[in-house]
Amino acid sequence: MDIAEEALAQHAAWKGKLAFNPKMDIATRHDLAVAYTPGVAEPCKVIAENAEAAYDYTIKGNTVAVISDGSAVLGLGNIGPAAAMPVMEGKAVLFKQFGGVDAFPLCLDTQDTDEIVETVIRIAPAFGGINLEDIAAPRCFEIEARLNDALDIPVFHDDQHGTAIVVLSGIINALRLTGKDPETVRVVVNGAGSAGIAIAKLLLSYGFENVTMCDIRGILSSAYEGMNDAQRAMLAVTNLDDAQGTLADAMVGADIVIGVSAPGAITGEMVSSMADDAIVFAMANPTPEIFPDEAKAAGARIVGTGRSDFPNQVNNVIAFPGIFKGALQARAERITEPMKLAAARALAELVSDEELREDFIMPDPFDPRAADAVAAAVRESAIDAGCGNA
Amino acid sequence: MDIAEEALAQHAAWKGKLAFNPKMDIATRHDLAVAYTPGVAEPCKVIAENAEAAYDYTIKGNTVAVISDGSAVLGLGNIGPAAAMPVMEGKAVLFKQFGGVDAFPLCLDTQDTDEIVETVIRIAPAFGGINLEDIAAPRCFEIEARLNDALDIPVFHDDQHGTAIVVLSGIINALRLTGKDPETVRVVVNGAGSAGIAIAKLLLSYGFENVTMCDIRGILSSAYEGMNDAQRAMLAVTNLDDAQGTLADAMVGADIVIGVSAPGAITGEMVSSMADDAIVFAMANPTPEIFPDEAKAAGARIVGTGRSDFPNQVNNVIAFPGIFKGALQARAERITEPMKLAAARALAELVSDEELREDFIMPDPFDPRAADAVAAAVRESAIDAGCGNA
Repeated sequence: MDIAEEALAQHAAWKGKLAFNPKMDIATRHDLAVAYTPGVAEPCKVIAENAEAAYDYTIKGNTVAVISDGSAVLGLGNIGPAAAMPVMEGKAVLFKQFGGVDAFPLCLDTQDTDEIVETVIRIAPAFGGINLEDIAAPRCFEIEARLNDALDIPVFHDDQHGTAIVVLSGIINALRLTGKDPETVRVVVNGAGSAGIAIAKLLLSYGFENVTMCDIRGILSSAYEGMNDAQRAMLAVTNLDDAQGTLADAMVGADIVIGVSAPGAITGEMVSSMADDAIVFAMANPTPEIFPDEAKAAGARIVGTGRSDFPNQVNNVIAFPGIFKGALQARAERITEPMKLAAARALAELVSDEELREDFIMPDPFDPRAADAVAAAVRESAIDAGCGNA
Repeated sequence: MDIAEEALAQHAAWKGKLAFNPKMDIATRHDLAVAYTPGVAEPCKVIAENAEAAYDYTIKGNTVAVISDGSAVLGLGNIGPAAAMPVMEGKAVLFKQFGGVDAFPLCLDTQDTDEIVETVIRIAPAFGGINLEDIAAPRCFEIEARLNDALDIPVFHDDQHGTAIVVLSGIINALRLTGKDPETVRVVVNGAGSAGIAIAKLLLSYGFENVTMCDIRGILSSAYEGMNDAQRAMLAVTNLDDAQGTLADAMVGADIVIGVSAPGAITGEMVSSMADDAIVFAMANPTPEIFPDEAKAAGARIVGTGRSDFPNQVNNVIAFPGIFKGALQARAERITEPMKLAAARALAELVSDEELREDFIMPDPFDPRAADAVAAAVRESAIDAGCGNA
């Protein structure tokens, strides 16, 4: 049985991947009086007096909503909310399994930006955080920004920031190997959607100074027509020389190329044109922009992909459970840029000098230390910045 | 330690009464590939082709949303969504513990009817049913009606219908003891809010013909001013003689009085004025309309309350878990009047002729047979009526 058949059979057997289980047994009238009426009135009254007490007496302190509108699900595209549920349930499973965070999957029966924003605001009281998932660009940017402004709990679009954090952690370690500096290397990001923009932004926050973005039509520059607002904003901080041309043009002499684009978008010839010790992240799924063996043959020193069957898998699961765990522990109101950088550094540091090599720049997705290391870094960053309320 | 102190301490220890647990272990790359990417794409594709498959492959088939706006919580009133969470979590615990139904508590940060309706519609894809809870009258009527029209999953306001079902089951058994007929007895319902109206409606559906409603200002009649739409609609089917006066007037010669009103609203004198073998349900909480000993002393033969420390406790927990369990099993699109009647009859029948006595007219709230008996009755009723999709 191949994975597809096995997955379908297992999903039919599971009938949903999550169970919502009581933390106590209600076996007697006394149990009922403590967990439900009349005793339950006591925590209600305390929370009515002081909203912050919800973190102490309800699921809020350890529960995240996984929210999607089903508009950009995996490689399947706009399959709608009902069909997106297995993915969101899976995400919730990973939150619990890897981070000990309770997560509930909610797929919304609307793809209207205003309606998504107002719906999430209205359901927020139950939750300590909001994980946005598989929402199409560019509305995902506006949704995340408006929700972060409206709510006092962190709102985090994992497709953007989780990916960016894991990529940055890998790049940090790739530079440890090559000995190059963030300030001087030249980076090309191919793919100007939500993930590409988030990666470029986080690299700039970290200290990279020379980043150029491309998409299928070439380099994002003053000559590029039809950019959305998010792309236009990136022009002020990327491609400072206003270079114009194709991805191939951009890659000549570059130190790092990061693909969040399409299968086959990067050729061996392009990789050959890069600087020595080239670093190639080819994360199109399931077929990468260029396969590792081809990239290596063309001169790349370090190659990462999104796949588990090659070394250096960029897998968000090493980041998001710990990010929310740390943010919830700190009762942070947002997941800030310093918190993301701290998470990326913590992941990079999990790979010791002894372990670090070309085909091991990132911790294994199953590394049991990852969630706690990320959580501690995020929590400390929040508290240091005075963003924590715990 | 009294119940209040114990409840507060326990709630602080639990930090939320529910955990959301994976049904599988994700310990290997293979596990991840089956439960998440890439395998998860298979059930997504099947559901995208056929929405009904969501019942087979996701949590939808066994998951209910417990929805409140925090506007009428227990006896605490309008305490808002955050403070209502402990109650809704408790309700979710009871769904699982008594009915095996997964339930998720959602407290909405709005008390506007239109906003509640549109929000529930938008979050509905994840759920197989909607349990409305502690929403103030009269907006609870409109919300339930509009959601039932808009959604193809059952929407059930437990404060109304759950209460009505349990009361009816008790009345059925009280009549078994007294030998009176539903068609000929005279019933007074004191309290014309959501529970009182639902009780009166269900009694009429069952076959009671002479029902009079009262509230604090007296009998609902053509002379009563300031009724809401729901109360006005009841005038066409209750108090057919258009009697006018006080609760005391209405109770003279009545066979049954059902209080869903206020502590002390019924006096011994009123009970003394009732017919022989009077049946008194005094469900104000925590202090009933009249205490059982006083009602008995005044001539009542059978007395029920909402309290666990007296016989004949009217407790919704014997009904709602089974009602949703049966409706989910049948994939019913609504919980219809015949399904409610079937549930009440099933509960009544759980009390055998040998067990039946004045202080045992209803199954114990912990009767392990209750949920399955109710579920079977509801499922069969749905299927018989062609309302089941399973």
